[in-house]
Amino acid sequence: MPYFDVASSAPLHPVARQALQASLDEGWADPARLYREGRRARLLLDAAREAAADAVGCRPDELSFTSSGTRSVHSGIAGALAGRRRVGRHLVVSAVEHSSVLHAAAALEADGGTVTEVPVDRAGAVPSASYAAALRPDTALACLQSANHEVGTEQPVADVASACRAAGVPLLVDAAQSLPWGRVGGEWSLLAASAHKWGGPAGVGLLVVRKGVRFAPQGPADERESGRAPGFENIPAVVAAAASLRAVQAEAAEEGARLRELTERIRARVPGLVPDVEVVGDPVRRLPHLVTFSCLYVDGETVLHELDRAGFSVSSGSSCTSSTLTPSHVLKAMGVLSEGNVRVSLPRGTQEADVERFLDVLPGVVAGVREQLGAPEAPTSGAESASLVVDALGKRCPLPVIELAKVIGDVPVGGTVTVLADDEAARLDIPAWCQMRGQEYVGEEPADHGAAYVVRRSS
Amino acid sequence: MPYFDVASSAPLHPVARQALQASLDEGWADPARLYREGRRARLLLDAAREAAADAVGCRPDELSFTSSGTRSVHSGIAGALAGRRRVGRHLVVSAVEHSSVLHAAAALEADGGTVTEVPVDRAGAVPSASYAAALRPDTALACLQSANHEVGTEQPVADVASACRAAGVPLLVDAAQSLPWGRVGGEWSLLAASAHKWGGPAGVGLLVVRKGVRFAPQGPADERESGRAPGFENIPAVVAAAASLRAVQAEAAEEGARLRELTERIRARVPGLVPDVEVVGDPVRRLPHLVTFSCLYVDGETVLHELDRAGFSVSSGSSCTSSTLTPSHVLKAMGVLSEGNVRVSLPRGTQEADVERFLDVLPGVVAGVREQLGAPEAPTSGAESASLVVDALGKRCPLPVIELAKVIGDVPVGGTVTVLADDEAARLDIPAWCQMRGQEYVGEEPADHGAAYVVRRSS
Repeated sequence: MPYFDVASSAPLHPVARQALQASLDEGWADPARLYREGRRARLLLDAAREAAADAVGCRPDELSFTSSGTRSVHSGIAGALAGRRRVGRHLVVSAVEHSSVLHAAAALEADGGTVTEVPVDRAGAVPSASYAAALRPDTALACLQSANHEVGTEQPVADVASACRAAGVPLLVDAAQSLPWGRVGGEWSLLAASAHKWGGPAGVGLLVVRKGVRFAPQGPADERESGRAPGFENIPAVVAAAASLRAVQAEAAEEGARLRELTERIRARVPGLVPDVEVVGDPVRRLPHLVTFSCLYVDGETVLHELDRAGFSVSSGSSCTSSTLTPSHVLKAMGVLSEGNVRVSLPRGTQEADVERFLDVLPGVVAGVREQLGAPEAPTSGAESASLVVDALGKRCPLPVIELAKVIGDVPVGGTVTVLADDEAARLDIPAWCQMRGQEYVGEEPADHGAAYVVRRSS
Repeated sequence: MPYFDVASSAPLHPVARQALQASLDEGWADPARLYREGRRARLLLDAAREAAADAVGCRPDELSFTSSGTRSVHSGIAGALAGRRRVGRHLVVSAVEHSSVLHAAAALEADGGTVTEVPVDRAGAVPSASYAAALRPDTALACLQSANHEVGTEQPVADVASACRAAGVPLLVDAAQSLPWGRVGGEWSLLAASAHKWGGPAGVGLLVVRKGVRFAPQGPADERESGRAPGFENIPAVVAAAASLRAVQAEAAEEGARLRELTERIRARVPGLVPDVEVVGDPVRRLPHLVTFSCLYVDGETVLHELDRAGFSVSSGSSCTSSTLTPSHVLKAMGVLSEGNVRVSLPRGTQEADVERFLDVLPGVVAGVREQLGAPEAPTSGAESASLVVDALGKRCPLPVIELAKVIGDVPVGGTVTVLADDEAARLDIPAWCQMRGQEYVGEEPADHGAAYVVRRSS
């Protein structure tokens, strides 16, 4: 039963399990106490900090253990913004950051600050020149992920860090996805990461604040972890997190090469196995273990459900799987198809045979879902009318696109189809469909309900 | 090697260890995911929430798991204050709350709110009438611990909760010390607790917000745990926390009675075994496992160190063990002696023989420290001068009190000794010494450096 969603959470690494169990007996006391149980706990905590700092490439006194990656991001952003309050209250982020970064940005905006979201290219990468151009004299902080969690694209952190340094702006790097594969290069100022992404236990995040960075922890005072992470230290988990980070980094070169070959196989073969698929994310500058593709005419939730029945656990950025009914902000920012989105992220040790079986199973799963939804197998040929209006109001992704695809053959080349739709995903998926199928997306017009999307048949 | 500091942190309970290990394989996935690993994690999380809610006596949807007791307190206070912002920005706390509560109160004050600290009696209990009198029309929230962490005194939570309810003010109970001994009675509105205090793992706090309580989570949005605890759920630890809470509560009546007998033995015998000792805290309305006493003429750090050498791990509220050089705010609020303070808190399963051995060892340890410091064995008798001035500037606790005790016999009854001291602990310990030794504390006078404490010999 292969689990292909390690980008959400990784099973516990054997080294983490071993370290956790070994430190349950030694690491439960308060490390601030002077008696032997406290001293033992302190030794474990200090050693874990040394190990984690070595893995990150920072000084031990620059690294605090928090309770999660999200906490690291929230506390890191809040502390850095407060530390530079006198400079201004402007924050720069890329449009494809993790929700924890975007939520922190939204909190700043709600509190009267301003945020610039730097757009990304169609591969999901932020151009470093655009990022540099977003920096202003009143910019207090800049945030950039080291690699994207949904499509695997690596960001130009070193270049952006240089630009930030030139502008005198600290850069916070969200390294949650990439840290298990190695240190983050470049002269960043702050870094956040999350242990359960690399096979460490839940409940441990890393927050690194380089010496010299102005930082004012927010919230009530607390003396633990340099004042940056209130609450009693979770030492057994911290020990397990540090030990497993070293272990996965030590295996990274070899295992990364192996998994890259497997994800490359998926990237290369899925478009041939499944019609109407778009593989998204940068094909080269990417995480080794992650590949994402979107399938026209299917909804993400049903695909995930069918893949789960077939024994594969994957994730999706399609709106249909989300409680908000809006598609992934990452896919939206990239301008790629969001419907039928499937993210495959392989855990260490994934076997070639499991990937092959996934490739065997996928075409049937997608075809089955398409059949259920009545997706068109091929465009019809009769050209009956110069323009058509399709009413897809009240229909959820992927139905508006399916309706469009069904009738595009009914207008002559040069004719238009107008799709009335109120599902938010249509705004992303109709242009994406046009791009995939070589049709012209004319634009969006206001309508009584939802919007009217106009498409001109080009071929 | 007996560990007598369970009020700081408890060793992992066997049930917690078992539950933790059993859920490491089942609880690592994201419980928001729909695939089987996610569903399994969700089942564990839901079951843990049911179990913890049952132990607290609340509905499962009222209980969130946070990353620590401190986080529960900080988030609970911030959310409740924000939820009643329109009522006002006044907070009521007792003077002997845990530092996490007082730090949250300080953060409110720094942000323009107001705080009333309700004084306690000499036993450390807040009189419910005083607490009720502190409630105002603009009071947004009231906080009260269920039992004190330093001296074990139980607070009148049910009475205070009634007063709060009558005033329309929500009451947050910090139940960190008492929850392992049973549910907190009374109609409280919010409750905070910490798993490592009852033998659960570190990294888990409970935050309960009763239905109908206005609550607005602060900080960046996060969809997990009803928006009250951002970050990926730490499910194995949560499962272990809930299971061990039920286990300790099930043993509470029997084990509580047994430990109460052992702490009673310490309370009763220490004053006879060690001269010049004050046992502090309520002798009856108290936690079963905790006893605290202060010894004149010794410093807490040296006593702790010597007890550690003798194999006993205990804690102290004396200034000498703290990095701040100020004595425990709890002892200060009670107006009792802070020097030579020793807190003994027995873990479950503590053997009678270990307590007896502690009672055997303690007198020699205290005598040894007193000898090192040159403490007076008995007051000298010659009355040479009607008033004396002792310069203890630059001398740390307990030296100013030792200097006072050395010369009190040198003035006649009715004569005065003035102690010049700049150690903050002297302000608490000189009056406490007077009360213990039947001498009259005249008062404090300003001096060029520090303060001048005037004592009149009465006997």
